[in-house]
Amino acid sequence: MNPTQILSPELARSVALRHGTPVYVYSQAALERQARAALAFPHAGGLTVRFAMKALPTAAVLRLFDGAGLHFDASSGHEVWRALRAGIAPAKVSLSTQELPAEVAELLAAGVRVNACSLAQLETLGRLCPGSPVGVRLNPGRGSGGTGKTNVGGPDASFGIWHEYTDAVREGARRHRLEIVRVHTHIGSGSDPGVWQEVARASLSLVREFPGVRTLNLGGGFKVARVAEETGTDLRAVGAPVRAAFERFAEETGRALHLEIEPGTYLVANCGVLLARVQDITDTGLGGRCFLKLDTGMTELLRPTLYGAQHPLEIVPADAGAGGDVPGCDYVVVGHCCESGDLVTCAPGMPEVLSARRLRQAQPGDLCLIGGAGAYCAAMSAKNYNSFPEAPEVLVGVDGVPRLIRRRQTLEQMVQNELEAG
Amino acid sequence: MNPTQILSPELARSVALRHGTPVYVYSQAALERQARAALAFPHAGGLTVRFAMKALPTAAVLRLFDGAGLHFDASSGHEVWRALRAGIAPAKVSLSTQELPAEVAELLAAGVRVNACSLAQLETLGRLCPGSPVGVRLNPGRGSGGTGKTNVGGPDASFGIWHEYTDAVREGARRHRLEIVRVHTHIGSGSDPGVWQEVARASLSLVREFPGVRTLNLGGGFKVARVAEETGTDLRAVGAPVRAAFERFAEETGRALHLEIEPGTYLVANCGVLLARVQDITDTGLGGRCFLKLDTGMTELLRPTLYGAQHPLEIVPADAGAGGDVPGCDYVVVGHCCESGDLVTCAPGMPEVLSARRLRQAQPGDLCLIGGAGAYCAAMSAKNYNSFPEAPEVLVGVDGVPRLIRRRQTLEQMVQNELEAG
Repeated sequence: MNPTQILSPELARSVALRHGTPVYVYSQAALERQARAALAFPHAGGLTVRFAMKALPTAAVLRLFDGAGLHFDASSGHEVWRALRAGIAPAKVSLSTQELPAEVAELLAAGVRVNACSLAQLETLGRLCPGSPVGVRLNPGRGSGGTGKTNVGGPDASFGIWHEYTDAVREGARRHRLEIVRVHTHIGSGSDPGVWQEVARASLSLVREFPGVRTLNLGGGFKVARVAEETGTDLRAVGAPVRAAFERFAEETGRALHLEIEPGTYLVANCGVLLARVQDITDTGLGGRCFLKLDTGMTELLRPTLYGAQHPLEIVPADAGAGGDVPGCDYVVVGHCCESGDLVTCAPGMPEVLSARRLRQAQPGDLCLIGGAGAYCAAMSAKNYNSFPEAPEVLVGVDGVPRLIRRRQTLEQMVQNELEAG
Repeated sequence: MNPTQILSPELARSVALRHGTPVYVYSQAALERQARAALAFPHAGGLTVRFAMKALPTAAVLRLFDGAGLHFDASSGHEVWRALRAGIAPAKVSLSTQELPAEVAELLAAGVRVNACSLAQLETLGRLCPGSPVGVRLNPGRGSGGTGKTNVGGPDASFGIWHEYTDAVREGARRHRLEIVRVHTHIGSGSDPGVWQEVARASLSLVREFPGVRTLNLGGGFKVARVAEETGTDLRAVGAPVRAAFERFAEETGRALHLEIEPGTYLVANCGVLLARVQDITDTGLGGRCFLKLDTGMTELLRPTLYGAQHPLEIVPADAGAGGDVPGCDYVVVGHCCESGDLVTCAPGMPEVLSARRLRQAQPGDLCLIGGAGAYCAAMSAKNYNSFPEAPEVLVGVDGVPRLIRRRQTLEQMVQNELEAG
């Protein structure tokens, strides 16, 4: 998807003028369209779509999704706090975390759904909140990545309770009179319907071991295509075998399970643009490279440096009257940090390998729109590296009007917690 | 170097109790020792050691190094602001940046040293500050990394002005009456004296083209050994051929050049410990993994996730009376983010490959000291990811007393710039 499909050249110039660059710009219309698409996920006995808020936790976005009928997945106690502060009802928030917060009993009492993600967490919940209904996150023993590599499921994943330990889960629940009402089995299943079918089957066989479970949460991990070479997830295609498996389960057991999914990237990735300015163009001679230098980089967009992620780029001339018929150039696009890894156009999956991108010929002062910047960009970046302040965020309403939803950090704010030693 | 050489178990328990975890702890004695070592770099006609402040820009550390006789290298206009705000004299600050700040004329007028890092920057300096003395950062045409990979020197590096363009540099300087008084050629040369000799030779041949140059800045990139398997830089060994080259240059040309170096990592890496707490221990069954989960991760320590960097780890029992004779365990140590890449013990250079580390058998509540956390940790991390607030920083004085130099960010501060849309 071209970034100018989300942010027109005219609006880009206007936002840059008013709010400066770099700035994140999100489209309300696109966010609401994605929410509707997710809510159409095939299901048999009811569906809750939870936004994995770690992808983009800004309050205005949370409220927009709340209005669109989504619930929320928090990955830390701090995220729960942030959702509640934004006005989200506690009962719409589910917590699945590596690090159980100290105030978990209060959260549970307020109505927040909590999933025990380890036997120790189950023990803590039992000790602090005996008699409560809780969920358990289980690791079904398989992941979608390779062996020995980081993974969200399988023996090399640290998330959830290992599937062979369900006896210990039942024993812990019995001891503390905890009622296991949900099973959660996120393994990051991607876009292949066959994988989703297998995941649903394995997860449902775990649900059989817990007669009180009424909800199965299959997590997220729905891939999206940020650039043309990538394949996105067809939710109807991956959801169809899941619905069929739920229907068979209901026939066999008489239990009509409620389905939960937790998309993050799917809901926001292609709804956001990082709007930056070209601030220099340099080269390294004949046979060398031509570098396009932006006023952003890993401070706002860490994914290329971290994963070798690909983001679509588009040059918008500063001058609205610039002709459309300008020859393309092969640029290596780099960020503003004094760090060789601050590379925007890396090779796919290879953060350190330079890759030139054919773009409209640019001049310093032109705008550069970086697409696919809604998920894990404002939320996960090397903030303040080289002492660059946090970039602001703007939401373009369905009325086409851009509104500031997060101000640019000031330099004083960046150092506000520093103290004299002594 | 074992982390407990920087932070004793007793002090670790005391800092954790007083300031909570995670918390960065730096040693004044170690920082001052490194400053002295850097100031002993061999030289022929004078030496200035500039701390590359992007590695650790906290004001208390800048002031400590100021007192120890160091000058400063800033990589952005914001870093210059931060140095001046900390009380550093402008004349001790040098700016070499990818992104020239709007206020560069004021900085130059105040006495800050500015190096033009592109022909466009030289043009801007000439336009805004004709007649000024300036430096130029040149790319000498070779780097220390491979071809096609991110690099700080050579045809694949975006830093500095390509060495074939010195005519254009002289022409631009002449046109604006800029006086080129410094040449800067950082290529990240590592620990091999042969590479330093070659870099000095190539840099000095560039200096010959600028008769007004009195200072040659060779940058930084002095490797340190964070874990036993790594090789650190012997400054006397890499400096000896540099001094010899400067001496030969002086004999041949009658010009006694002043040498500048810009260490970052060398000055701070092994002077800091990230103090965290073990908050869970889980496993994935027979033949699976045993995971040690910390209350920190890529939110404070991004280097393993980004580069596959290795950091030494040490468990300090919460109970001071715990016996010393505890068998070791092979743990995969992971962070607190809901992100499979939040892995502390990755394989060297392979961020996604799990590697178990033999550590003292741990219990939840025990402390985990992560060494080598002085450079590019507090300064470069995925701050606020999963909504974890910024960790505080503590400086242990030469008197052995720990003092807070940066408070923990509050949750309200994390969202203080968010606005209602509308």
